[in-house]
Amino acid sequence: MRDLTHFFNPGRVAVIGASKTPGKVGNSILKNIIESGYKGEIYPINPGESEILGLPCKKNIGEIPGTDLAIICVPAALVAQIVEECGKAGTGNIIVISAGFKEVGKEGAALEDKIVELCRRYGMNMMGPNCLGMVDTHVPLNASFAPDMPAKGEIAFISQSGAFGTAILDWSLNNNVGFSKFVSLGNKADLDEIDFIENAADDPNTRVILCYLESITQGKRFLEVVGKATRKKPVLILKSGTSEAGVRAASSHTGALAGNDRAYDAAFVQTGVLRVETAQELFDLALAFTTQPLPKGKRVALITNAGGPGIVATDAVERMGLEMARFDPATVKELREKLPAESNVYNPVDVIGDARPERYELALNIVLHDPNVDTGLVIVTPQAQTNPPGVADVILKVKASRPEKPLLVCMVGGRRTSEGVEKLTSAGMPCFVFPERAVSAIAGLTRYASMLVEPPEEVAFEFPADQARVRAILESVRADKRNTLLGTETAQVARAYGIKAAPSCLAKTPDEAAEIAEDLGFPVALKIASPKILHKTDVGGVKLKLDTVGKVREGFVEIIENVEAHMQDARIYGVEVQHMMPPGRELIIGMVRDLQFGPMLMFGLGGIYVNLLKDVSFRLAYGLRKQDVEAMVRETKAYTLLRGFRGEAPADIPAVEDTLIRVARLARDFPEILEMDINPLFAYEAGKGVSAIDMKITIS
Amino acid sequence: MRDLTHFFNPGRVAVIGASKTPGKVGNSILKNIIESGYKGEIYPINPGESEILGLPCKKNIGEIPGTDLAIICVPAALVAQIVEECGKAGTGNIIVISAGFKEVGKEGAALEDKIVELCRRYGMNMMGPNCLGMVDTHVPLNASFAPDMPAKGEIAFISQSGAFGTAILDWSLNNNVGFSKFVSLGNKADLDEIDFIENAADDPNTRVILCYLESITQGKRFLEVVGKATRKKPVLILKSGTSEAGVRAASSHTGALAGNDRAYDAAFVQTGVLRVETAQELFDLALAFTTQPLPKGKRVALITNAGGPGIVATDAVERMGLEMARFDPATVKELREKLPAESNVYNPVDVIGDARPERYELALNIVLHDPNVDTGLVIVTPQAQTNPPGVADVILKVKASRPEKPLLVCMVGGRRTSEGVEKLTSAGMPCFVFPERAVSAIAGLTRYASMLVEPPEEVAFEFPADQARVRAILESVRADKRNTLLGTETAQVARAYGIKAAPSCLAKTPDEAAEIAEDLGFPVALKIASPKILHKTDVGGVKLKLDTVGKVREGFVEIIENVEAHMQDARIYGVEVQHMMPPGRELIIGMVRDLQFGPMLMFGLGGIYVNLLKDVSFRLAYGLRKQDVEAMVRETKAYTLLRGFRGEAPADIPAVEDTLIRVARLARDFPEILEMDINPLFAYEAGKGVSAIDMKITIS
Repeated sequence: MRDLTHFFNPGRVAVIGASKTPGKVGNSILKNIIESGYKGEIYPINPGESEILGLPCKKNIGEIPGTDLAIICVPAALVAQIVEECGKAGTGNIIVISAGFKEVGKEGAALEDKIVELCRRYGMNMMGPNCLGMVDTHVPLNASFAPDMPAKGEIAFISQSGAFGTAILDWSLNNNVGFSKFVSLGNKADLDEIDFIENAADDPNTRVILCYLESITQGKRFLEVVGKATRKKPVLILKSGTSEAGVRAASSHTGALAGNDRAYDAAFVQTGVLRVETAQELFDLALAFTTQPLPKGKRVALITNAGGPGIVATDAVERMGLEMARFDPATVKELREKLPAESNVYNPVDVIGDARPERYELALNIVLHDPNVDTGLVIVTPQAQTNPPGVADVILKVKASRPEKPLLVCMVGGRRTSEGVEKLTSAGMPCFVFPERAVSAIAGLTRYASMLVEPPEEVAFEFPADQARVRAILESVRADKRNTLLGTETAQVARAYGIKAAPSCLAKTPDEAAEIAEDLGFPVALKIASPKILHKTDVGGVKLKLDTVGKVREGFVEIIENVEAHMQDARIYGVEVQHMMPPGRELIIGMVRDLQFGPMLMFGLGGIYVNLLKDVSFRLAYGLRKQDVEAMVRETKAYTLLRGFRGEAPADIPAVEDTLIRVARLARDFPEILEMDINPLFAYEAGKGVSAIDMKITIS
Repeated sequence: MRDLTHFFNPGRVAVIGASKTPGKVGNSILKNIIESGYKGEIYPINPGESEILGLPCKKNIGEIPGTDLAIICVPAALVAQIVEECGKAGTGNIIVISAGFKEVGKEGAALEDKIVELCRRYGMNMMGPNCLGMVDTHVPLNASFAPDMPAKGEIAFISQSGAFGTAILDWSLNNNVGFSKFVSLGNKADLDEIDFIENAADDPNTRVILCYLESITQGKRFLEVVGKATRKKPVLILKSGTSEAGVRAASSHTGALAGNDRAYDAAFVQTGVLRVETAQELFDLALAFTTQPLPKGKRVALITNAGGPGIVATDAVERMGLEMARFDPATVKELREKLPAESNVYNPVDVIGDARPERYELALNIVLHDPNVDTGLVIVTPQAQTNPPGVADVILKVKASRPEKPLLVCMVGGRRTSEGVEKLTSAGMPCFVFPERAVSAIAGLTRYASMLVEPPEEVAFEFPADQARVRAILESVRADKRNTLLGTETAQVARAYGIKAAPSCLAKTPDEAAEIAEDLGFPVALKIASPKILHKTDVGGVKLKLDTVGKVREGFVEIIENVEAHMQDARIYGVEVQHMMPPGRELIIGMVRDLQFGPMLMFGLGGIYVNLLKDVSFRLAYGLRKQDVEAMVRETKAYTLLRGFRGEAPADIPAVEDTLIRVARLARDFPEILEMDINPLFAYEAGKGVSAIDMKITIS
């Protein structure tokens, strides 16, 4: 982990390119540092000035050796020289605000590479370039040119967009939201979101980590590091750019179905990141996490003074995978005794329209006491007798007496509820206007809590595998100037990694084919072995269910004739003789290589249904946990088929999972394997294993 | 249509049960009427008072005959008598505020029936009972006990929950939202949402109709009436009680019978209602509809001063089925000439961080002028040079000069944007904080616009059908005390309605079976004809692919023996001999009867996949349009199969659609048919039709 202690909490800060001119970045940043109440030493650096904003000016960073943090806001062309000066002066950390690097093209990218190289050489941490700076409200230090200092709080907010960052800081000032840290990533040339997430996970002032990201470049490192961070604190990510389509031509089913966004989804699932869809959700959840304990389970109790919003909230509870709590009989009994006769004493509890604060308090205390309730949601509508500020008071009182149970509030209203809302939010209780958003926040809390109680178990990949054999096959394929393997070659690769494949062998003559067929056992299938031919059946290159030596000989000759008639120029390697396995449930297991995250596995219904039904799931081979392998199978409708559909015996699910793990290791061990498709993989009854019938491998 | 002119705009209003005591409903309503600025005559009625709130009191409604509107707020037990007095006094419309009717049980329901009967007898319109009253801001008249009068506007809001209604009115006061009418439906004993939607569709003060509904009881009427209303104005419905638990809450709340959510979905699609998921969405859309013209298409242009929110919005555009506009080359050229070099001149247009109002104005004018742009979305983040109020001014200016194109605004921020937001919203431009909500509103506008340009074509059901034949068959089944039809009977029903079914006939003896088989043509299938046996194969009751007279005779005997061995007590009608049709693509067409909306059709992938894949679509037989029949097929993955998957020839889709229409008519003509299943329906190549292989019919 990078040590960012003195980055966020420097003893001495220099602003290189500080300016006297209001409105200039070099002026705004210096002003922000001063006004943020920063207690350390501040040095403006500008060779042409003797004093700026009342502080004596230095000519260059060399005059203040060993500075913890230098903020650089000089034109791009000068940055490399300044960075080198910083390095020589023993500066620990730098923030490069200046733009004009990778984002403007090739030349800028070269400049950026150069400053990264300098940082490495001198052992400096760098944030940026092309960023807004950072804020730490606890130090306090506003080393950014964001126009306002955000309020102190427990949310670390990491943004890849500077403008989005400032917009959110501005929004926060009107919405009772505070931050521990704000980080503008800029071009992420050195320090990136992974470093800041790792750091914030250990920051005592931070309770929840929020990111707005447009890309993750170090996928494998992300999987390793962020998976650990989420065990310590919730990490919420709004990842934009989901519509950006992966335009690479795919040669496999898996490639056709997998997109870059699938890889991000898998990465977030495997690391325990909570992915949100909207900026609104990001902050709704952040507020819930910073103010509430984690629920013990997914059972929600609603207390409302109106039926309508109660039903709306109940719908949302079900839609978002939560459960309506079923009260203990004692709870129902007590509610019935103490509430008016017209109240509904089952969940959702309706304290009815004339409920005053005392009745809310009564109901809340009873309901939150119920061991079958994991989270409470109070809904308040402003009716004639309702006293929203009074209800807010009793909510805070009940909350204080039961700090261990999450309790969220929804005040549906505006003018008549504003005082109550203000009471709640200024006391640190988030308050939502519409019930669905409150329920969505509960769903986020619950999802994170359930993840925490399920410790991740990395797949060990501890099985014997004949790597040398695979290496030899791949080398021979490359020597043959091919990038796809023959069926007989993929079968050998499969066997080397313990993947059960239908026995097969390449025959060069009809006699050889007949001999092999006798060896493998009848019936057999014959398939033309010619890597250029994609649709073997269309050119008469396949014969199935041959059960005598004579038919095999004939079949061999016919196949060669057919193929030669259709495709004169196809190079024919012979005919593959494959023992025909008994039919099983048809599945697909595949792999494609994602640019950011490396090998990505696919599982689903196989056969012709792959493209029709697109019933598939994805996970990444790195950061692969046992629960991911299980979940991949369970997420699909294929699982219903495997469990035993319409009276069939269950299939050998452990063998399917084992095959996934073996494919994952094969992809990890051989980066030159770009894509794999096992389609179909036949799954047999429990205990009887699986069989890879057709397997395709493409290498680079 | 009910004439509600004097309901909303009465010349004279009476409040029966008016009270001097502040806080009492009879006091609040009278006070609201007076304070709302109502210009007509107001009469409090209370036999025990001579004057209330400065108005002379009447003893009873008889003293003011011919009153347009009487609002009744006396205890439930007295309501019937009061209603009768109103009737006798020639009152035109009544609102029953009082609770204590259907919602409290059997006795209340009887009371409710009685007052409905009285309204019918005297020709009065009634709203309620158990409601909050209504508001018409244009009259103006606040005939409700909602605590505040909403602002004048163009949204008609119809709520089945009174409390939700007041909460929303309260919210509206803080959010620059105005209403034309607010209607609290209560128990909907007489006037219901259909009446008010129909009325609002012709109300010149209303531009958009919003409903919060928990149930629709008159489904068939809803389909007829609301389908016409949506051609005039957008109707947005938040229908709660979608979840199982929600349904429970709904029935305990208003005593309404909740319907199947699939049927509601179908009803909304078929009537052109925009169904929203959240209260937030309801109002986001309402604001867009009341302030913007309808877009000509789905191409959206984004103008932003920051990349991040631009990407977030682009994602939302793609996710919500809209398109990013591709600019005309002239647009790109002009933007490139007039914007700074660093700007992005393609969509999303990035006017970059230092954009001042003038640059926004320039870009907006150019982009909105582009004929390839249907809707514009401006995104503003508060950066150092940004002047949000100034940007708001230019947005309003551009908007005024191009009133024909929808233009939405998103100001991501809080403190620094609030003045700009206030300028926009008070000038009637909705302004969103987060881009996704703005895009969602554009999606709603676009969806409604696209619906309007596609005129609905009701299915005519104009084909010859032998109703007498079906009636005779159903009567014979009833006479036989069965509620399921034999296969040979369903085949006859099918044929009577022109549904292609595999030829079949019932045989009582082996010889008869052999004779029938020869008549129908080989191969044939034999199936036990015994309505109690659900799984014929399991008891050895099915023989397939019999191709000789001998095999048919043998098969008959074996089937009878098998079934008798398995089920001694099953009544056997004989054996069904069915000509075996060549295999086709396996589909399912089915029908169930929904309590609210009547017969509901289902279409999807047939065979064993029905339950596994649940690839099905639903539409209602009433209000069925040609586009619904087409959409039913297209919505499913079965459609991919029918169009010709993996090189197959396309299937006879028109024949499939024709079968759906015939099944729909059969269900409409015979209400006693409760359920139908054609599974599988074989679909053959284009022009070769379909064949119903197995058809089940259940009657009441």
